[in-house]
Amino acid sequence: MKATTIHAPFDIRLSDVPEPTLLAPTDAIVRVTASCICGSDLWPYRGENPITEGSRIGHEFVGIVEEVGSSVSSVKPGDFVIAPFMYSDNTCPHCQNGIQSACSTGGFWGGHDHDGGLVDGGQGEIVRVPLADGTLVATPEVPDESLVASLLSLSDVMGTGWHAAVAAQVSEGDTVVVVGDGAVGLSGVLAAHRMGAARVVAMSRHAARQTIAREFGATDVIAERGEEGIAAALELTKGVGADAVLECVGTDQAMKTAIAVARPGATVGYVGVPHGIELPLRDMFVRNVGLAGGIAPVREYLPQLRDDVLSGAINPGLVFDLEIPLSEVAEGYAAMHERRAIKTMLRP
Amino acid sequence: MKATTIHAPFDIRLSDVPEPTLLAPTDAIVRVTASCICGSDLWPYRGENPITEGSRIGHEFVGIVEEVGSSVSSVKPGDFVIAPFMYSDNTCPHCQNGIQSACSTGGFWGGHDHDGGLVDGGQGEIVRVPLADGTLVATPEVPDESLVASLLSLSDVMGTGWHAAVAAQVSEGDTVVVVGDGAVGLSGVLAAHRMGAARVVAMSRHAARQTIAREFGATDVIAERGEEGIAAALELTKGVGADAVLECVGTDQAMKTAIAVARPGATVGYVGVPHGIELPLRDMFVRNVGLAGGIAPVREYLPQLRDDVLSGAINPGLVFDLEIPLSEVAEGYAAMHERRAIKTMLRP
Repeated sequence: MKATTIHAPFDIRLSDVPEPTLLAPTDAIVRVTASCICGSDLWPYRGENPITEGSRIGHEFVGIVEEVGSSVSSVKPGDFVIAPFMYSDNTCPHCQNGIQSACSTGGFWGGHDHDGGLVDGGQGEIVRVPLADGTLVATPEVPDESLVASLLSLSDVMGTGWHAAVAAQVSEGDTVVVVGDGAVGLSGVLAAHRMGAARVVAMSRHAARQTIAREFGATDVIAERGEEGIAAALELTKGVGADAVLECVGTDQAMKTAIAVARPGATVGYVGVPHGIELPLRDMFVRNVGLAGGIAPVREYLPQLRDDVLSGAINPGLVFDLEIPLSEVAEGYAAMHERRAIKTMLRP
Repeated sequence: MKATTIHAPFDIRLSDVPEPTLLAPTDAIVRVTASCICGSDLWPYRGENPITEGSRIGHEFVGIVEEVGSSVSSVKPGDFVIAPFMYSDNTCPHCQNGIQSACSTGGFWGGHDHDGGLVDGGQGEIVRVPLADGTLVATPEVPDESLVASLLSLSDVMGTGWHAAVAAQVSEGDTVVVVGDGAVGLSGVLAAHRMGAARVVAMSRHAARQTIAREFGATDVIAERGEEGIAAALELTKGVGADAVLECVGTDQAMKTAIAVARPGATVGYVGVPHGIELPLRDMFVRNVGLAGGIAPVREYLPQLRDDVLSGAINPGLVFDLEIPLSEVAEGYAAMHERRAIKTMLRP
């Protein structure tokens, strides 16, 4: 079968690899309907993360179950399933506490599982799914093609934006500021809106992304950054600050902006992987601004978000602005790297 | 009248100062029944904070209202009142959000109010209270002498320990670790117990403080510090970590311990003023360990904690292990500085 492999910075290939088979009774084999490229896939692509030459890549996919191990009971061949960006047993204490991203036996796609078996990446034709019962979430029936993009977004970006809003403790009637207009930030806007925020302020200076933010429920858009962006957000909140802030970038400037626009007592929900952040802890202490978040436990939110997509309550698939065949995966990476695309969907 | 003044490191005096008078219609004049010395008073005492020679000091007191300004309606002469360690209007947006410690017109005792008037310190005979309606909380009647210590503790340490538990989101049935066995840490133990924690682990290596911790509801005591303390706490929780952690010290070691013993998804509630803390942000992100807290909005919790003291549900006054006359205030500072006392009560 074909699967995406990475060989060096800017060297992404679609390669012939062995077709996966069931290795454990808890495994499932899933034929990919659609996968996509994540902002975090660009780190190794750009050479910012170490690369194991020829390793698999991709961690977001939906597909049809082809085969299940003997102990798998929650999905069956023919089911349409959504895979979170990490697999998990959903039974260990951390999973039971709703933090499946810290699962004791879980892990990332494209690596090796706890028994040493190769775990396929998501950007391929077929994927062996470890711990299938604890990982996959099925839809009641194979969904209409028009819903595939939104269901695929639940694999990562929508679940991650949702986590930012959960961590920030967004409540009905809140004024929420979202820092970051990538696919996760836009999903955070949608999450805050869905949770009943009265005002959702998107910080974005890209026209196309501003448009999606407004479609997702943003009531205000701030194009300025840094001190000017902070001043604009504070002015919008009459100097008080926001009730909840979502930090969806991970840079020092984004975090400092998020903390500065939070009102005393507010929480910054952060899901951007921290890069070079120096927290202004004294200021946070004086103003009681909290910080919560981390690697999103997407599996925890999947059942609810799946139902929201199926009912039409949310349409997070709007973040995909480029759809190409899996065979052109290298162009998909280039388009995202060059910011020609917010998020690229791949169809095997 | 007499009031405590600070002149230089280790130079605390009881001085003759002018008797306060009403300066604004929102003021009250309170004759102090009891006041006390705070761990934070030791910073200027030790020369770690700058000192304005001759300035007033002390921010915790209870007393009897002697006189009120024309617009004060919630307290009247003869009332027994508890003063939080900051005064506040209790009407601005931050107060309405429950963060009275960030009040737009509030401030600290011993400084100057927003009109430029001198604000007395708490360690004196009489105090002018700005914004009396938003600051003072009265008891229904003058309480029995046996309750004075517990009511006084609500001025700061008990309200601050409570804030740590609120910030850490302590819930019924939780396993809670409390880092720090000063008066605030011990109050945090009591708060977690009162909130229904099933297991409260006090990190303390002082026998007298361990005893109070157990009286306050600690089910376990860990005497080790650093890596050994972390290992002991993790062992107690079967390797999972605590559901909530209270950081009541403010040092780098205390914070690193608190974060290390938190389970994925837990929040560290911190109330120790941060000194030289470097947060392990990547670890916090990977394990979804949040951080919340800051300067405690004691005023927010006072009505509830007052009722809990009056009903006998809590007895936080146990933290006072030294009671001396106000005239011996210098000895009170020395006793706390030399760790001969956990907390010193002063009686004018």
